[in-house]
Amino acid sequence: MAEEVILLDFWPSPFGTRARIALREKGVEFDMREEDLRNKSPLLLKMNPVHKKIPVLIHNGKPVCESLLIVQYIDETWGHESPLLPSNPYERARVRFWADYADKKMYQVARTVFLSIGGVQEAAKKEYIECLKVLERELGDKAYFGGERFGYADLSLIPFYSWLDALGKLADSSIVEECPKLAAWAKRCMQRESVAKSLPDQHKLYDYIIETRKELQAK
Amino acid sequence: MAEEVILLDFWPSPFGTRARIALREKGVEFDMREEDLRNKSPLLLKMNPVHKKIPVLIHNGKPVCESLLIVQYIDETWGHESPLLPSNPYERARVRFWADYADKKMYQVARTVFLSIGGVQEAAKKEYIECLKVLERELGDKAYFGGERFGYADLSLIPFYSWLDALGKLADSSIVEECPKLAAWAKRCMQRESVAKSLPDQHKLYDYIIETRKELQAK
Repeated sequence: MAEEVILLDFWPSPFGTRARIALREKGVEFDMREEDLRNKSPLLLKMNPVHKKIPVLIHNGKPVCESLLIVQYIDETWGHESPLLPSNPYERARVRFWADYADKKMYQVARTVFLSIGGVQEAAKKEYIECLKVLERELGDKAYFGGERFGYADLSLIPFYSWLDALGKLADSSIVEECPKLAAWAKRCMQRESVAKSLPDQHKLYDYIIETRKELQAK
Repeated sequence: MAEEVILLDFWPSPFGTRARIALREKGVEFDMREEDLRNKSPLLLKMNPVHKKIPVLIHNGKPVCESLLIVQYIDETWGHESPLLPSNPYERARVRFWADYADKKMYQVARTVFLSIGGVQEAAKKEYIECLKVLERELGDKAYFGGERFGYADLSLIPFYSWLDALGKLADSSIVEECPKLAAWAKRCMQRESVAKSLPDQHKLYDYIIETRKELQAK
């Protein structure tokens, strides 16, 4: 029986981007369905009744929600010859820690940069640079966060770089100067086909961010 | 070589409680070290320099941080004959979803009940009851969230019941009436030795919550 793999998604979402990259890393064909978040589809509301959020992966009719859980599901379901998570429990905990850091810390700070103005925004920008420096130190001389191979932590973090680039313009900061290793890592990641095909177009994303900020600030 | 397993913990913490239950489910001997969160130990600051939070599991000198990652590490490291997570990827994603729900939703709402007063607190209490009803529906007629066996989702959620009981007094709500299946599940969980030994004493917890609220409101 042919597999049916549907991804309910929204193009600028760093969370949706993670699922796209993971599916492409595993060579899984999927049907990406763009959601209008102001008018959510009956399918999204049915498949994720608790959070009503994208991304949702629907595999043969069964939903998996929450981006990091989707990526782990993809890793456990397809392409065991090219795992996204390492096999050693300690190394697994480490890459999970950095993926979790993206959600608990970086996303929250980026959101504040995005939604605020003035002093609050300035403070959040500084905090964001501090987050990047933490990542710079963790990366050290490794090619990827898990070591020699692109994997779980990298694909969890790289979508934020995309936002970062757009936010960089807002934040008036030069990531390359502050965090050269992280910038080189991002370049390495973006050279992968799975990543290049999955990240939103930078110019389109910048316009989207500017436009959404304007709308929110007008409220 | 004898294993060295240290848990940096704080007795009322629902997050620390998860790690305690998981270690006891697996029959792992551990040295629980109580942290003074107002004067964190050099060991905690060294082992969790990013978040500086408990719990931290230190296994033969190597730290694992974040409670859900600690529980997964414990499951992948010890007692493979009594797994905490199911082996099927879809079932794994499901129990991970409910553990994540505890963190993303229940903890945030419980925190608001705990820290706020007046109308804000009233709204948060109602939202908390709604969270419990979501869990009641999900549990249905199953013995545990993962099915017939106590596991990952249960041990992630049950520490919040402890708080709930104390919060129940604050919230003036009767969980048993609103959510009979959930109440029966909690009773079942609390009959397990691993859980009974790990949950904070209810009276002590109630006093702690009342005292901490007073201090915070005086600020």
